[in-house]
Amino acid sequence: MERLVAEFARLPGIGRRTAERLAFHIVKSDSSEALRLAEAVQEVKRSVKHCSVCFNFTDDRLCSICADPRRDASTVMVVEQPRDLIAMEFTGMYRGVYHVLMGRLSPLEGIGPGDLTFAELARRIDDPGLNSRGEVVAELILALNPTLEGDGTGLYVASELKSRKVKITRLARGLATGSRLELANKAVLSDALEERREVQ
Amino acid sequence: MERLVAEFARLPGIGRRTAERLAFHIVKSDSSEALRLAEAVQEVKRSVKHCSVCFNFTDDRLCSICADPRRDASTVMVVEQPRDLIAMEFTGMYRGVYHVLMGRLSPLEGIGPGDLTFAELARRIDDPGLNSRGEVVAELILALNPTLEGDGTGLYVASELKSRKVKITRLARGLATGSRLELANKAVLSDALEERREVQ
Repeated sequence: MERLVAEFARLPGIGRRTAERLAFHIVKSDSSEALRLAEAVQEVKRSVKHCSVCFNFTDDRLCSICADPRRDASTVMVVEQPRDLIAMEFTGMYRGVYHVLMGRLSPLEGIGPGDLTFAELARRIDDPGLNSRGEVVAELILALNPTLEGDGTGLYVASELKSRKVKITRLARGLATGSRLELANKAVLSDALEERREVQ
Repeated sequence: MERLVAEFARLPGIGRRTAERLAFHIVKSDSSEALRLAEAVQEVKRSVKHCSVCFNFTDDRLCSICADPRRDASTVMVVEQPRDLIAMEFTGMYRGVYHVLMGRLSPLEGIGPGDLTFAELARRIDDPGLNSRGEVVAELILALNPTLEGDGTGLYVASELKSRKVKITRLARGLATGSRLELANKAVLSDALEERREVQ
């Protein structure tokens, strides 16, 4: 029992009290229900792997995006986590492929370039044969979180790859559509002013 | 009493019940307090005027921004309301001057170009003598709210002025600094993707 509580408490957002409640539920519930949970955990660890090209979750060698011949594989969007990829896919606006870094640089947490899939990204650019259909990467879109650590990670990627013949862009910063100017903070207004565009 | 309730109820965000409570408070409170409110209302209407150049609030002919010789009067930021101007001033990033439209186009509410200070804006561009120090307007920055009506107003301003020799820009749209990509909605991500910039 104590071990199960400790395992639940290790999950993100689950405190000691919630862990105890969950463990208690498992103890009380009938055997088949509890075993189905255990099996689902084992199954997901067995079957969910990372795409060998972009590191998105997949249950095959290639993820469904890398395997899709309609996607433009010459444009690669660099994201921190699979959940960022999911948010972008949800817009239906992006037709290129991805590269999931599996985190961001964080000196405070001791996360360096070696802990991310940065080397694999550089290799995709240097050796087109590594991409799903052998395409040359023409544009890299940095789609990292607009935070201090996301910015730092983007700067690192851009400076390390600047000698390569690949165009590097990043997502726009500015006013969020539907928001109100009077409620925008200083950083948002500064970005919006600095990155202003000419109206055609 | 009925008239006072009606006057309070006319204020934005004040319903009939609140108006009754306020009116009741006035009736109960001592005479001097109630009269101070009346005088303050009269005083503000007497002393607060609109800047003759940009329509910002002022108690003089020119507002403090138009009167400041250190401001770059060749760059004019077009905002909907004085409160948007205040938000932008708070950033300390903008060194140009303003033009306050005093609202936005809203066909549903029957607000057309004639209800805004649009004609005065066009005149400032056509006749530099109307500006505070006679400067020619070189750039117009549209800083309208990133909403349907703000966009419509911006489109109208840009299309009406496009024959003039003035550069027209607008504030950037995209991810709000400090936000998280996975929580951004479809419209924000679409803007961020579409307006992406090359990393130098």
